[in-house]
Amino acid sequence: MIKAAILGFGTVGSGVFEVLNQNKEMISNKLGDEIEVKYVLDLREFEGEPVQKVLVHDIDVILNDPEVSIVCETMGGERPAYDFTKRALEKGKSVCTSNKELVEKHGPELLQIAKAHNCNYQFEASVGGGIPIIRPLATSLSQEDILSITGILNGTTNYILSKMEKEGADFDAVLKKAQEHGYAERNPEADVCGYDACRKISILTSLAYGKNVNFEDIYTEGITEITTQDFAYMKQLSATIKLFGKSMHQDGKYYAMVAPFVVTEENPLYSVSGVFNAILVKGNMVGETMYYGKGAGKLATASAVVADVIDCAKHLGKHIYVKWDDEKLAVSSIENANRRFFVRVSTTDHAQVEKDFGKVTFLDSLFEGECGFVTEAMPEKTFFEKAKAAGNVISRIRMDA
Amino acid sequence: MIKAAILGFGTVGSGVFEVLNQNKEMISNKLGDEIEVKYVLDLREFEGEPVQKVLVHDIDVILNDPEVSIVCETMGGERPAYDFTKRALEKGKSVCTSNKELVEKHGPELLQIAKAHNCNYQFEASVGGGIPIIRPLATSLSQEDILSITGILNGTTNYILSKMEKEGADFDAVLKKAQEHGYAERNPEADVCGYDACRKISILTSLAYGKNVNFEDIYTEGITEITTQDFAYMKQLSATIKLFGKSMHQDGKYYAMVAPFVVTEENPLYSVSGVFNAILVKGNMVGETMYYGKGAGKLATASAVVADVIDCAKHLGKHIYVKWDDEKLAVSSIENANRRFFVRVSTTDHAQVEKDFGKVTFLDSLFEGECGFVTEAMPEKTFFEKAKAAGNVISRIRMDA
Repeated sequence: MIKAAILGFGTVGSGVFEVLNQNKEMISNKLGDEIEVKYVLDLREFEGEPVQKVLVHDIDVILNDPEVSIVCETMGGERPAYDFTKRALEKGKSVCTSNKELVEKHGPELLQIAKAHNCNYQFEASVGGGIPIIRPLATSLSQEDILSITGILNGTTNYILSKMEKEGADFDAVLKKAQEHGYAERNPEADVCGYDACRKISILTSLAYGKNVNFEDIYTEGITEITTQDFAYMKQLSATIKLFGKSMHQDGKYYAMVAPFVVTEENPLYSVSGVFNAILVKGNMVGETMYYGKGAGKLATASAVVADVIDCAKHLGKHIYVKWDDEKLAVSSIENANRRFFVRVSTTDHAQVEKDFGKVTFLDSLFEGECGFVTEAMPEKTFFEKAKAAGNVISRIRMDA
Repeated sequence: MIKAAILGFGTVGSGVFEVLNQNKEMISNKLGDEIEVKYVLDLREFEGEPVQKVLVHDIDVILNDPEVSIVCETMGGERPAYDFTKRALEKGKSVCTSNKELVEKHGPELLQIAKAHNCNYQFEASVGGGIPIIRPLATSLSQEDILSITGILNGTTNYILSKMEKEGADFDAVLKKAQEHGYAERNPEADVCGYDACRKISILTSLAYGKNVNFEDIYTEGITEITTQDFAYMKQLSATIKLFGKSMHQDGKYYAMVAPFVVTEENPLYSVSGVFNAILVKGNMVGETMYYGKGAGKLATASAVVADVIDCAKHLGKHIYVKWDDEKLAVSSIENANRRFFVRVSTTDHAQVEKDFGKVTFLDSLFEGECGFVTEAMPEKTFFEKAKAAGNVISRIRMDA
């Protein structure tokens, strides 16, 4: 019998409780041992609910109980989650978390502490909700030189973009509807400005290359500038627009960014729509592999936490080495990254456009007084200089290939 | 320094050698230790090639060397791979394999032996080539009640079906071309009759439910009866035809089968074309997750073997429990499975068709003297009785949903 505790009985925490109870038999069968939730930590009372029997309000009850070997941190936020996690690990208790903020900020340090105390710090649920991506990246792909990671890492923005495409509706209108349906937060900044995706690509990039990426160092652009007019041009390109978290290893240099991209049909990520997430990982030996599923939601996220709990249960007393050093990964500026751009300008003078942007492929004009085109590949810096000089750019979106 | 041996220097074995050498630095970095290939076993000589230095012809050299802690079995076939694997495990050496035949047939026994000798038997490469699916299923999803697994598990047949669809070419013509290009074996039976997919869904099903499925018990139908005429109707259904390996857990019963299915656009597997493989796993908590990548090929498959090698290296002296009992999983007959069928019959008499098959949805007729339609859902047994009684069925393909 393995005893676990859950810190925080919010959406994910109560989901973990539910998964562990509802799939108890399944889990015992696969693990060859039983997992029991001995404590749930929350400041609230839950009168008459099943959780009440195991509810505690004091973290020390959990930390001082030697029977508890695994702790699920599902509180979110940096404090007090950081302190609780650290203290649990120092007591040799493995910690499983869905807290991407904490993982992104303190991952290397917490892994170090886990190592020093022969326990584990696991965070499958921190990226991609229910999609197994952390473990595949850290184990199944650790023999690979990861050439690139491209992820649809945020369900809210993917839902909004899918709706804009299908219904031809404006960003603001779709966002409002998404908020009404609970698919978007009342304060949607973290999602629509790309900050959430940024934390996630930061974690994935750190794991892929074994060194630490600060999310502040990642170029981040959201979807607030994307319009229905942009989408209108996509049919001609057999493409759609997706918010990507993206990192690359090219010619010895590392790049990381979050931005909307024009994605053509050939890309396996093209057909990932609605609230689904997917991550495409390209290795130098295995080629492209993709991981797809629900990127959020109570039970999907909780399921990933429980997967970690089972893995920790299989490794009690043994630290499983995960390479993620405190040393900073030198991330190169995307200014030098070579790519094509989809552009709309407020002129119909094709000759002028080619004077401004060099050789381009013109699309059929869809709106009065403008034209749309795709540039040749050039360094980002060059493109933005040309765009500035032209002074007539209505919108520009990076092409994925 | 961890010492490994490779048994068999064919396509996969030489690929393992290549991955371990070419990504040596990457691997050492991620593992925190170095892996060296001390021996390669093969009956052939490889004069002047790098492998010659470590080549041996006698398995006992490897088995009797206590320095060797990990063995890659990339020989294929049952004998002598079975004996070599067993003897290696009995010596406490972990074994990593790409040999699906052996895994399917002796998986539970070899896992038992590994457990008894504190080592591991790993087989990520046996299903889906480079796609991480065995480890996700055995670890990331072990908390789930797996409701269904649906896989495009054979690249050759997927390539053939994709070509038939895109080029409107006949099965025989496409097969011949595939053979010329090396995408299909000279003796293509194992692929086109579904036997290869069958072994793979057998392994996945056993892992999903922890009990043993014999591949002989799995209903298996290949793609040899699929015609360009069948494909011609698919546009009206916004669908395509895929060979699926499929298992399900429904109302306490287990089902497993291999057969061509009509797959509509909404299914994430719809857009998996060419030699790619993908596996869609539905859990009761996490919902749908999908795994996609190269299902075959030297380096992709070798990469999966090396992932296992690294995992074994992280767990030297410790067996990681994998639930796959020798006890037989009771697989129910698919006769009782409820589903719709796409059907073509050699009559244009719609009234007669509805007399024979009940209410159906007719498609626009594309060929003279026949009509195409989709039935309502009914047990397979009922459908085949009706089809036999009607006596005019040209083709019938199961609908995936």
